[in-house]
Amino acid sequence: MDYQRVFNQAIDRLHAEGRYRVFIDILRNKGSFPNARCFAGHNGPKPITVWCSNDYLAMGQHPAVVTAMEDALHDVGAGSGGTRNIGGNTHYHIELEGELADLHGKQAALLFTSGYVSNDATLSTLAKILPGCIIFSDELNHASMIAGIRNSGCEKQVFRHNDLAHLEELLAAANPDAPKLIAFESVYSMDGDVAPIEAICDLSDKYNALTYLDEVHAVGMYGARGGGISERDAVADRVNIIEGTLGKAFGVMGGYIATDQTIVDVIRSYAPGFIFTTSLSPVLVAGALASVRHLKASAAERDGQQAAATRLKTMFADAGLPVMPSTTHIVPLMIGDPVKAKRISDILLAEYGVYVQPINYPTVPRGTERLRFTPGPAHDESMMRDLTNALLEIWDRLELRLAA
Amino acid sequence: MDYQRVFNQAIDRLHAEGRYRVFIDILRNKGSFPNARCFAGHNGPKPITVWCSNDYLAMGQHPAVVTAMEDALHDVGAGSGGTRNIGGNTHYHIELEGELADLHGKQAALLFTSGYVSNDATLSTLAKILPGCIIFSDELNHASMIAGIRNSGCEKQVFRHNDLAHLEELLAAANPDAPKLIAFESVYSMDGDVAPIEAICDLSDKYNALTYLDEVHAVGMYGARGGGISERDAVADRVNIIEGTLGKAFGVMGGYIATDQTIVDVIRSYAPGFIFTTSLSPVLVAGALASVRHLKASAAERDGQQAAATRLKTMFADAGLPVMPSTTHIVPLMIGDPVKAKRISDILLAEYGVYVQPINYPTVPRGTERLRFTPGPAHDESMMRDLTNALLEIWDRLELRLAA
Ligand SMILES: Cc1ncc(COP(=O)(O)O)c(C=O)c1O
Ligand SMILES: Cc1ncc(COP(=O)(O)O)c(C=O)c1O
Repeated sequence: MDYQRVFNQAIDRLHAEGRYRVFIDILRNKGSFPNARCFAGHNGPKPITVWCSNDYLAMGQHPAVVTAMEDALHDVGAGSGGTRNIGGNTHYHIELEGELADLHGKQAALLFTSGYVSNDATLSTLAKILPGCIIFSDELNHASMIAGIRNSGCEKQVFRHNDLAHLEELLAAANPDAPKLIAFESVYSMDGDVAPIEAICDLSDKYNALTYLDEVHAVGMYGARGGGISERDAVADRVNIIEGTLGKAFGVMGGYIATDQTIVDVIRSYAPGFIFTTSLSPVLVAGALASVRHLKASAAERDGQQAAATRLKTMFADAGLPVMPSTTHIVPLMIGDPVKAKRISDILLAEYGVYVQPINYPTVPRGTERLRFTPGPAHDESMMRDLTNALLEIWDRLELRLAA
Repeated sequence: MDYQRVFNQAIDRLHAEGRYRVFIDILRNKGSFPNARCFAGHNGPKPITVWCSNDYLAMGQHPAVVTAMEDALHDVGAGSGGTRNIGGNTHYHIELEGELADLHGKQAALLFTSGYVSNDATLSTLAKILPGCIIFSDELNHASMIAGIRNSGCEKQVFRHNDLAHLEELLAAANPDAPKLIAFESVYSMDGDVAPIEAICDLSDKYNALTYLDEVHAVGMYGARGGGISERDAVADRVNIIEGTLGKAFGVMGGYIATDQTIVDVIRSYAPGFIFTTSLSPVLVAGALASVRHLKASAAERDGQQAAATRLKTMFADAGLPVMPSTTHIVPLMIGDPVKAKRISDILLAEYGVYVQPINYPTVPRGTERLRFTPGPAHDESMMRDLTNALLEIWDRLELRLAA
């Protein structure tokens, strides 16, 4: 057994497919997002504009968030020093869980170290508590949900993306007495389309299934108080479990579920991914608390972000660039080839100071490689114009096709 | 299918076994650890002394750590805003990975959002890259390693705790051509004993197995520069993969592996738990960087902690309290019953302002429930005397047995 050879082969496969990843080395400039600085490796250190951050509303630099984190750092220190059960349950955690439960109109909420862990831990544990459970999973569900479902060891039925007829076909064919869970997202972040939440809840009622909704790309962003698409569509009370992150629109880090008290109690008590890990740093929790509270009360960031996204989509479309039909804040340009996507991204960074990461397999299916732009409230009209012109020059240079 | 009934039954089982967990609501006081304040639910808000923190060296309040976090917060903001591949790879991450690789004398290191995730993601991915891999796992391995091994889907052979003869028996019986991995810990945190790392490496050489060592409770704590038991025993170069946390002795939050460049490259490229999640907040990374650097240069915290642990063990033993034979900084008192362990802990908190969490199943095997004390450099002689006297009074009141 030659371990080194096996590992090298695994890496060679990535190079051969043009999807070996080089992480670009950056620091954002607090107070002037989307501006950042980029280190060696791309023509040396220089200022750049970030076009692919998931800190959608720039809350990571919001004074309320920064001040709350600073205060917590000085009051209680850096880390929590323990798991939630052993020394790591701070008053901040309890307050934030209350705030998140309220945001989604649920009885309770539970924090995890990330959105990934919240999906993995909750789905795998729920399904274990419900013997014989069948999970119905949208084919475009995020890797963290796929991991949770896989780790639950239970039966999985995959329905075609947002396809109600297919979902119903599968539900109707399943044993009526088996526990059932429908797992899906509200905003699919690589395409920017939205799930028919209400219609899925109608099906869950009809077939007595639980619903599990990942609102990671929607919390803070949609609804009058930032409760997500389920708030915007007034269906939050019909979803059993809403899952979210503190690391995207809320600008910090961490994940959570909001649901019934009993389900929180079950997950809190049985999920190894919740129990056996140091709890979120109180500094992060304090920052997230300030962010959630701010975005409950203020729609200015959401409105600014939506306006920027609409503006950029229009500019791209007017220029004939292959912008995908997103109905949300996500602005993806379809490229369809991993090497070309990387090449465009490299030129943008090296020559134009524009940072947008190519999105390749396994994040999206092969053949649908793309550039994914996330304009925020701080990306202004002239940045958008510069970006569009840069893309047009590169399209010309690489002899790519524009729409007529 | 009545979901509510099934969930309620799951909770009832915990109450029936006396292991339903109530999280106590605290805030530590930065600058005066182990002092903290405890909120409602335990005779109202009041000052307490924390005796069960895993912030072993009180680095969570160290000025170098706090200042570094504050600087990062002001320089780059709260969160990273993306995954490592998409916008979330900051210069701090790269620097800390370099520092950790150096700490363990390895070519490279890789950060994860927690120690739990580093174990789960690395073990499950490694074993998938090595088809037919057999994992040899110590029976007392942590839940996060068990999760990773389980999620790898590969064959697992459990050897009796620290039992070299049993491990060799299993290795010798296995297919010589199959890839093999031995997964174990250096300091077992609930008992405080230590693995025979060198002897396990001898076996791994003899049977051509990889070694995976969890040093979560040892990094920062042992070795001239805090490289763990593998540094203390001068065997780090013989271990293939060393895994650690930033959330215990380093006082912040996050996890990592340190290993060969190729293995880092494989995990970085193939592990969903690394790829599909917002990277550690740069604020945490900056704090951890300062902490690791400080503890590389300073042994004062380690020495103070060791002295405190020795002192407390001696006091407990002299008083006839059932202190377990730990050879490390962990000071466990064996109780052997979940209800009694919780009762003692409740009295300590309510009447003596002492916070030590009872450790029940599933954290330790049933029948070995215990109180686990983690004295740090800031727990002084008079605190220890007060604690010992409080325990003696409670032992008397509850008619528990003392050694002769
Ligand atoms: C749909 C979806 N769910 C969950 C996650 C994980 O959230 P987190 O980054 O907080 O781990 C992500 C992205 O990271 C995501 O896109
Ligand atoms: C042995 C061991 N490994 C891993 C972990 C997980 O580390 P973290 O708290 O950073 O998730 C823990 C405890 O939490 C542990 O005790």
